[in-house]
Amino acid sequence: MASKILFVTGNRHKLEEAGRILSPHGISLEMAGCEKLEIQAGTLEEVASFAAKAAAREIDAPVLVEDSGLFIDALGGFPGPYSSYAFKTIGCRGVLRLMNGASDRGASFRCAVAYCSAGDEPRVFTGVSEGSIANDMTGSSGFGFDPIFIGRGGRLTYAELDAESKCRISHRGEAFRRFAEWFTGA
Amino acid sequence: MASKILFVTGNRHKLEEAGRILSPHGISLEMAGCEKLEIQAGTLEEVASFAAKAAAREIDAPVLVEDSGLFIDALGGFPGPYSSYAFKTIGCRGVLRLMNGASDRGASFRCAVAYCSAGDEPRVFTGVSEGSIANDMTGSSGFGFDPIFIGRGGRLTYAELDAESKCRISHRGEAFRRFAEWFTGA
Repeated sequence: MASKILFVTGNRHKLEEAGRILSPHGISLEMAGCEKLEIQAGTLEEVASFAAKAAAREIDAPVLVEDSGLFIDALGGFPGPYSSYAFKTIGCRGVLRLMNGASDRGASFRCAVAYCSAGDEPRVFTGVSEGSIANDMTGSSGFGFDPIFIGRGGRLTYAELDAESKCRISHRGEAFRRFAEWFTGA
Repeated sequence: MASKILFVTGNRHKLEEAGRILSPHGISLEMAGCEKLEIQAGTLEEVASFAAKAAAREIDAPVLVEDSGLFIDALGGFPGPYSSYAFKTIGCRGVLRLMNGASDRGASFRCAVAYCSAGDEPRVFTGVSEGSIANDMTGSSGFGFDPIFIGRGGRLTYAELDAESKCRISHRGEAFRRFAEWFTGA
């Protein structure tokens, strides 16, 4: 029988992606009915841990929290932990503008997944996709900065990959698979 | 006798500016020995309130917390509550690049000051400076995005004003004066 875990997020795209990754491991997700309390911190691990601990305490049940971000080398790591806000305001176009003429286009998509039971300390699992910032927006699948991120060795942006292919190579795929392996004792 | 209040900040520029504004009201500030716990929230008021409540509880004493940000109209409010991170990563140059060719250069500097005693609810005081984004960086006083912000009706950036002049018209000056008036019962 599948294990069901509460996932603290307001982002349906994330719920769908994470569900797709965890499903082969016999884990299904359900949106938790509480807010994700996000702190301003330098690392995704801190943001995810803090939010997981707060949510587990609030709803008195084990929860999963995910935090991810795009870290661009030439921009000192920007937008990093604030990728969601940067996406909502300046968007892919703003990031492309900041990168206009930049010779170093290196970037990584990073993900931290925190699992916490009420009263326990969170456990954190991470995933990283190294890659580069494209010259233009391309593709329409995925979400967020997917249309401008190309994984290392690839030619297509994450928004040009189908969901299965993206999950196989993505930062989110890696982090959730690590969690699943630990959770199922594999 | 001057009242002494603990100010929760790691930013010495802010401590100096706030001290300068409060001094005529008989209030002096001392850096509190605890961290400012910042949440990711849509408004500065929420960030300052949450941090003040957490700090007052942690050190069991009344505290002041300040949060401020630059909100640019053409960028959907970016960098807003994440101004400090945006400054450290893309800086003034990055913001100028995002604004390159923008005809609407309207922006506001906003500030929220929260005062909280242990076990109480915080009180929040706000200040706003309307203005615009300059075409270039100018001036060397102040800090953060001061070199690219021109207050309404002015011609100089905040970084071209001396400290007294800036505090008289700034968002931070307004918010701390409102606090001082309430605190001293003026």
